[in-house]
Amino acid sequence: MTSTVDLNCDLGESFGPWEMGNDAAMIELATSVNVACGFHAGDADIMRRTVEMAKAKGVSIGAHPGYRDLHGFGRRPVPGMKSSEIENLVAYQIGALQAIATAAGHKVTHVKAHGALSNVACEDDMTANAIASAIKAVDPSLIFVVLANSKLVTAGEKANLSMAHEVFADRAYGDDGLLVSRSKPGAVLHDPKVIADRVVRMVQDGAVISVTGKIMKMRTDTVCIHGDTAGAVEIAREVRNALDAAGITVAPFKTASVIRTGGSTACPG
Amino acid sequence: MTSTVDLNCDLGESFGPWEMGNDAAMIELATSVNVACGFHAGDADIMRRTVEMAKAKGVSIGAHPGYRDLHGFGRRPVPGMKSSEIENLVAYQIGALQAIATAAGHKVTHVKAHGALSNVACEDDMTANAIASAIKAVDPSLIFVVLANSKLVTAGEKANLSMAHEVFADRAYGDDGLLVSRSKPGAVLHDPKVIADRVVRMVQDGAVISVTGKIMKMRTDTVCIHGDTAGAVEIAREVRNALDAAGITVAPFKTASVIRTGGSTACPG
Amino acid sequence: MTSTVDLNCDLGESFGPWEMGNDAAMIELATSVNVACGFHAGDADIMRRTVEMAKAKGVSIGAHPGYRDLHGFGRRPVPGMKSSEIENLVAYQIGALQAIATAAGHKVTHVKAHGALSNVACEDDMTANAIASAIKAVDPSLIFVVLANSKLVTAGEKANLSMAHEVFADRAYGDDGLLVSRSKPGAVLHDPKVIADRVVRMVQDGAVISVTGKIMKMRTDTVCIHGDTAGAVEIAREVRNALDAAGITVAPFKTASVIRTGGSTACPG
Amino acid sequence: MTSTVDLNCDLGESFGPWEMGNDAAMIELATSVNVACGFHAGDADIMRRTVEMAKAKGVSIGAHPGYRDLHGFGRRPVPGMKSSEIENLVAYQIGALQAIATAAGHKVTHVKAHGALSNVACEDDMTANAIASAIKAVDPSLIFVVLANSKLVTAGEKANLSMAHEVFADRAYGDDGLLVSRSKPGAVLHDPKVIADRVVRMVQDGAVISVTGKIMKMRTDTVCIHGDTAGAVEIAREVRNALDAAGITVAPFKTASVIRTGGSTACPG
Repeated sequence: MTSTVDLNCDLGESFGPWEMGNDAAMIELATSVNVACGFHAGDADIMRRTVEMAKAKGVSIGAHPGYRDLHGFGRRPVPGMKSSEIENLVAYQIGALQAIATAAGHKVTHVKAHGALSNVACEDDMTANAIASAIKAVDPSLIFVVLANSKLVTAGEKANLSMAHEVFADRAYGDDGLLVSRSKPGAVLHDPKVIADRVVRMVQDGAVISVTGKIMKMRTDTVCIHGDTAGAVEIAREVRNALDAAGITVAPFKTASVIRTGGSTACPG
Repeated sequence: MTSTVDLNCDLGESFGPWEMGNDAAMIELATSVNVACGFHAGDADIMRRTVEMAKAKGVSIGAHPGYRDLHGFGRRPVPGMKSSEIENLVAYQIGALQAIATAAGHKVTHVKAHGALSNVACEDDMTANAIASAIKAVDPSLIFVVLANSKLVTAGEKANLSMAHEVFADRAYGDDGLLVSRSKPGAVLHDPKVIADRVVRMVQDGAVISVTGKIMKMRTDTVCIHGDTAGAVEIAREVRNALDAAGITVAPFKTASVIRTGGSTACPG
Repeated sequence: MTSTVDLNCDLGESFGPWEMGNDAAMIELATSVNVACGFHAGDADIMRRTVEMAKAKGVSIGAHPGYRDLHGFGRRPVPGMKSSEIENLVAYQIGALQAIATAAGHKVTHVKAHGALSNVACEDDMTANAIASAIKAVDPSLIFVVLANSKLVTAGEKANLSMAHEVFADRAYGDDGLLVSRSKPGAVLHDPKVIADRVVRMVQDGAVISVTGKIMKMRTDTVCIHGDTAGAVEIAREVRNALDAAGITVAPFKTASVIRTGGSTACPG
Repeated sequence: MTSTVDLNCDLGESFGPWEMGNDAAMIELATSVNVACGFHAGDADIMRRTVEMAKAKGVSIGAHPGYRDLHGFGRRPVPGMKSSEIENLVAYQIGALQAIATAAGHKVTHVKAHGALSNVACEDDMTANAIASAIKAVDPSLIFVVLANSKLVTAGEKANLSMAHEVFADRAYGDDGLLVSRSKPGAVLHDPKVIADRVVRMVQDGAVISVTGKIMKMRTDTVCIHGDTAGAVEIAREVRNALDAAGITVAPFKTASVIRTGGSTACPG
């Protein structure tokens, strides 16, 4: 069972003159951040500023590639893209961030797909494999952040990538080990205390309790926290405090700790 | 005096469904190509296709960063950008191409600024230095393609970058060693034979004859050739044939050959 | 039976420095043109140029609104748009062209949806109704160009819009009165003579013969012609010549002739 | 002397998922609003929402066209645009808003250039005339909002447009009747009381006191108020309250009241 966990958060989602999110608050709570790369949000200057902030705080950075859809913030699928097009889309965005990071004296250590690109990839082998292929082709030492039990895991295994398994602090899980759809009642948890306790148990037990009460083994390398609203920051803070209080080390995931082993029990039956 | 020269050409200037240029013809004539990186032209798929084509032909590739101005094709200055913004703009584009190149098994070896970004930088120290800083910060082994006697040379020297000095095959030079403005009569040469002979002499003599007949020393590592029109391709072919006929080796510039030495006589006067 | 028919063609699909299509050739053959409005192609200058060309030739103009997707040329659906968002998208584009047309002394007389927006609307009531609502809200005198037997027809009827029924010269029809999918063999016709004869018969008979030989009544106010390739222009020219030779008047559709009557027999079965 | 004045404010400057400004607060204080049209900010949905809000509050709306520069928010000049290109740029944006307004049951009554487009036009005849030409060509009944003593006034007179003369509540004026550059000390006023008193006097006296104490006649049809910051909203509220307290009617400018007469004394000296 892990006694160390990472807290990851999406950052750098402003664009040009438009601000979004509470980056200053979240950088104090997260141990790794996913940086928007200019396709659904962010631009070269915001990326630079975000990377510098992360470096100053000792926080890890990852590329957060999304569909080419600024107006829709990458939340809408782009149907009909070929495997090679998704691979190029992701490779381009990783490279852009790598150069910005190098210029700022930091280093990209992971990749996590954003919004609709992630949602589609969780269920679509082609998309998941294209993302994994892009990571492998650009830099096979990059850690692939994956949602437990999704196609992302299969794709990461196939590409032989190191993976960090991600759980959501504020979301209910079904008996299939997948997130309950947001449209279902009870899918999203709101009480900071309840959420924080749940995260501590997930890390300590290496398991999550499903909506029906089933205990399911679930590897927890990183917990996704949000900063979109005042309430979200409050929840994130509660999670961080609860982990600290429980004596769990909150630190960036490292290649060594997340590397996939043949007999991974990450995905329950 | 050099007996080797490079022919460089802008490629990958299509966008989405829109085609531009005669890439297939020019890849047969050039020895290094400048690849648009998605800000003024190009996209991840076109970059990939261009890089693969270059790799197949043994042609070197370079990033061709431009202002963020797709509609204006990067031909209009973007006033008021700060030094750090230009540096981030250039770093982002270099990194994007590096990742695409790595994924395709090729390697970015040079950087040449595009359109208005280049024109502004030729006369503006701040812009020239920001471009050079970006190159140095992302990968100091990248060769900076510079226009003789421009601020690009000074900036490259200051950043201690390897530079490839570029001349234009079809343009007249003034007594100051700079290109005669396109608005002046005689600024652009049109006769393929005249242009080809001129290039051979520039390479053989390490000098160019100005509009007033003055012989000026000018280092010639690479000659810029164009493929925008049928006539342009014809000129490029004539240049290539004339160099071959004169026994001049046409090959990609290499770091070793272009590295700046303290006593460079590249800039007359 | 009609003895007059319109030939419509998509024009103004260039963008910034990138050219697309054979606008100069097609403006000689078409009697009404659908002008891209800047979301999937075109810009204010290209719109102006296209409108002026149409005015000079006495050709009608229509707005050709598409999804906001320049990179994908509006050929990919944008999932998840709400009805109001589609209505605003279409209204915006119509208005932009109206202003450009007014400035050029011409007048927008019709609207035809582009690419994926049209494809989606042909099968999706919500999208079709949103397009029809936008037209009605902006200017109820605008003629709605609709594909026979599609949801566009139902939407146009519901909004009480004048409609011009469109057929495709070079496409096979199924027994349901709809186009055979491009992925099926025989879906696209290639022989200019065959296509031209077919168009003449469609106009003269007010009917089309399906792939199984069934004769289906089909109103034909306008025939869609393409100019993307040299072959396409050749087909368009053959169609125009055959209509002229058959004594069929080729002229822009007019509100009077296309206005929907309660007992329209446009849709077979 | 005027006893009626309009308060105008820029609204609808959000984009896609990114919010900007305090539109809800400002719509309560302004009597006419300038709506971003999608080129430097805004989109079709935000335009619709803004227009509906204005209609509900009985507030006039105007088009607020800017350069095509979303990333730079239209604050950077776009050098090298031809007169016809500026005219098309402005016509397109006016038309887009007109259609959205018509669909929402409201009506565009004025046009005010945004950011760099306005700044450039204030000093450049070509740009000012192109804007005025666009307004005239699209709808000559639209009121042109102009900065006193700028090239906009000359251009509006030349095009014979109705003009609303605008003053800035929080800016110092030089002896030339123009705004003191923001870079100069004292150029921007900050004390809400001082600003509000100044506006009341400008309206009551039809004059403004320059930085040197010179009293200059200045027509004041509309006062520009801002809502970018909490402080800005506070100033706007103070101005509105002071005008109400002084018995000055705060109402949208109307064609009748602003129409330019030959002997206008709007421009001192």
